[in-house]
Amino acid sequence: MLVLVANLGSTSFKYRLYDMADERCLARGAVDRIGEQKSKCTATIGDWSDERTMAIPDHGVAVEACLAQLTDPEHGAIKEASEVAAIGFKAVHGGRLSGVFRIDDDVLDAMAEMNAAAPAHNPPYIAAMKAMRARFDLPLVAAFETNFHQTIPTARKEYAIPRKLADELHIRKWGFHGASHRFIATRSAELLGRSDARVISCHLGGSSSLTAIKDGQSVMTTMGMTPQTGLPQNNRVGDFDPFALPLIIEQTGMTLDETLAYLASQGGLLGLSGRSGDIRDLREAAAQGDENCKMALDVFVEEIRRHLGGMMVALGGVDAIVFTAGIGENDDEIRSAVCANLEEFGIVVDTEANANLRGEACFHATNSGTQLWVIPTNEEIVVARQTVAVLQQN
Amino acid sequence: MLVLVANLGSTSFKYRLYDMADERCLARGAVDRIGEQKSKCTATIGDWSDERTMAIPDHGVAVEACLAQLTDPEHGAIKEASEVAAIGFKAVHGGRLSGVFRIDDDVLDAMAEMNAAAPAHNPPYIAAMKAMRARFDLPLVAAFETNFHQTIPTARKEYAIPRKLADELHIRKWGFHGASHRFIATRSAELLGRSDARVISCHLGGSSSLTAIKDGQSVMTTMGMTPQTGLPQNNRVGDFDPFALPLIIEQTGMTLDETLAYLASQGGLLGLSGRSGDIRDLREAAAQGDENCKMALDVFVEEIRRHLGGMMVALGGVDAIVFTAGIGENDDEIRSAVCANLEEFGIVVDTEANANLRGEACFHATNSGTQLWVIPTNEEIVVARQTVAVLQQN
Repeated sequence: MLVLVANLGSTSFKYRLYDMADERCLARGAVDRIGEQKSKCTATIGDWSDERTMAIPDHGVAVEACLAQLTDPEHGAIKEASEVAAIGFKAVHGGRLSGVFRIDDDVLDAMAEMNAAAPAHNPPYIAAMKAMRARFDLPLVAAFETNFHQTIPTARKEYAIPRKLADELHIRKWGFHGASHRFIATRSAELLGRSDARVISCHLGGSSSLTAIKDGQSVMTTMGMTPQTGLPQNNRVGDFDPFALPLIIEQTGMTLDETLAYLASQGGLLGLSGRSGDIRDLREAAAQGDENCKMALDVFVEEIRRHLGGMMVALGGVDAIVFTAGIGENDDEIRSAVCANLEEFGIVVDTEANANLRGEACFHATNSGTQLWVIPTNEEIVVARQTVAVLQQN
Repeated sequence: MLVLVANLGSTSFKYRLYDMADERCLARGAVDRIGEQKSKCTATIGDWSDERTMAIPDHGVAVEACLAQLTDPEHGAIKEASEVAAIGFKAVHGGRLSGVFRIDDDVLDAMAEMNAAAPAHNPPYIAAMKAMRARFDLPLVAAFETNFHQTIPTARKEYAIPRKLADELHIRKWGFHGASHRFIATRSAELLGRSDARVISCHLGGSSSLTAIKDGQSVMTTMGMTPQTGLPQNNRVGDFDPFALPLIIEQTGMTLDETLAYLASQGGLLGLSGRSGDIRDLREAAAQGDENCKMALDVFVEEIRRHLGGMMVALGGVDAIVFTAGIGENDDEIRSAVCANLEEFGIVVDTEANANLRGEACFHATNSGTQLWVIPTNEEIVVARQTVAVLQQN
């Protein structure tokens, strides 16, 4: 079965095509600048790389353009577009729906109900999904990012708010990055050779979250009702005190919506540093003596450690800590800072192994009670697997 | 030197009178229903208890009434009102001012600047302080609750917000319950026989917070910019996702201010249980099978554990965990639930000692690497000591 996994942006469409018989990636590509006259469609199939420029008015046409490349008579990965069994999506916030679903009117409605909670994510996803449905008969499958966190116990999922708000408006700690944390749960069980391990998955990238995993299931996560909470993100604020909002509104004259949009676009590492949301820029500037960039890195590490500790206590001990995503996989200084000074808890870094690490590898010292790993994440394959599972159910 | 320590409510005034030569409490009393025609003034001085009913229009007159009782010719604690050297207050939020200060116009202005962040606390305090200043020459001293937390390192104090908001509006994690945590820092150092211990102070009561202490100083705390954040409180929400607010506003029709007031009065344990913010009521109802009351207790414990873990990692190990305030001192089930399943981290409860504990005592097992204590707090004596220190400086 061939599955196309799509990653949607408001004006972009990235994809990978998988043959699920052996989970091989047959092709990958992207369409950029959707809605403009000169949209760019790129594809890589084996040794062949193709780039085409044309007008792509919406995401439906974008999928058509990518299927044209995939079925290229000379270099294509497939003969007919109909060989693709389904398109699977990572979808962000479905509120009352947090599983994996064939996209129908109810799924789109559930996402629309959460527009106010995920204004940057849900409206463009809904528009893109509608454009694709209008154009194709192909089954579209939404794998919600909240799905992996359904197993979190109630006591770690509820805000201390009136039950009416929690139940009627679905305001709970849903959690996100579910596909990535699910991949880490599966892969870490293979590497540890046991399925009952207590694992803390640190997905650190443009957006970041930690998830505590026990018996392969999520039991705690750092993001809450919306993907704005938890750790500081590249330009989003992370955990913040809602009761400070009236002061900001009173003193700046911004509205609530403007204030939240400001915190979600000018906050995070960008807000702390006043310079950049990219950790590589911060490291460079910090090395040259920029105090705010150094502080931004320190706050990021302290917040990761704060949540790490909360998860260690929730699990009653930790068998492995796994780092993944752009920062987690590539920034050994963040990894060593997160794990520093935890020898009393049996967490000891092999400094050399950490500094020289590439790809999937461990970096704990021989006397460390907790294993420390880097595992490159693969969210697309998780979505592809979930898409197959939904198709086989129906 | 005699110091009167005042605890202000919007319509009440409680006090204790200390002789600071030996820190003896000479008298205590309260004025209730300030602003009504039949205000009640009670005082206890040695064996003498007195209750008087009269019209008390404001907090200035309330202090006069209490001084009249304190100087009662037959039973009074003092001969002349002038023997009282100062009145010390626990003040909540001074924003840019977070130390201990003689109350002057600048202190009152700094508090007024934070009215929007502490609407339940600051305006009545300011009104009461003004009424007292208008009536007496007596020095008035404000010991801000944020004061003890000034030693928290920057990386654990800053929100990931633009520097402009942090610097100009003083939006940081200030922390509160400073007098109580300072008392625990001092007393735990005496009990442990060392001043360099790593201690986590769990102040659990009508409002609750945890503070990590190292070398006698606060290095991390759970409350943030306002006392609404951190752990769930009796009827206040604690940590919450600000980006959920637009959804609540859209769906309920409440304004932002109404929504925040709702979360700060109908949230916390009350909101979770739908029944009561008093943990004794929750325990009774949970025992009779009320699921939401049981859930409220579970959320409270999980949130304490989450923050406890963050502090354990920040400290790199913990020498003592101390429980204090109404719940911390009296609820052995909360204490044992907070400390449960932490044997891998060297935290082991002596179940029998915990269940039978009264007053100041430890309850760790002999094989526990971390000491576990109950220490009854005494915020008033801390304020009295700070008041003396300020008077001696000037």
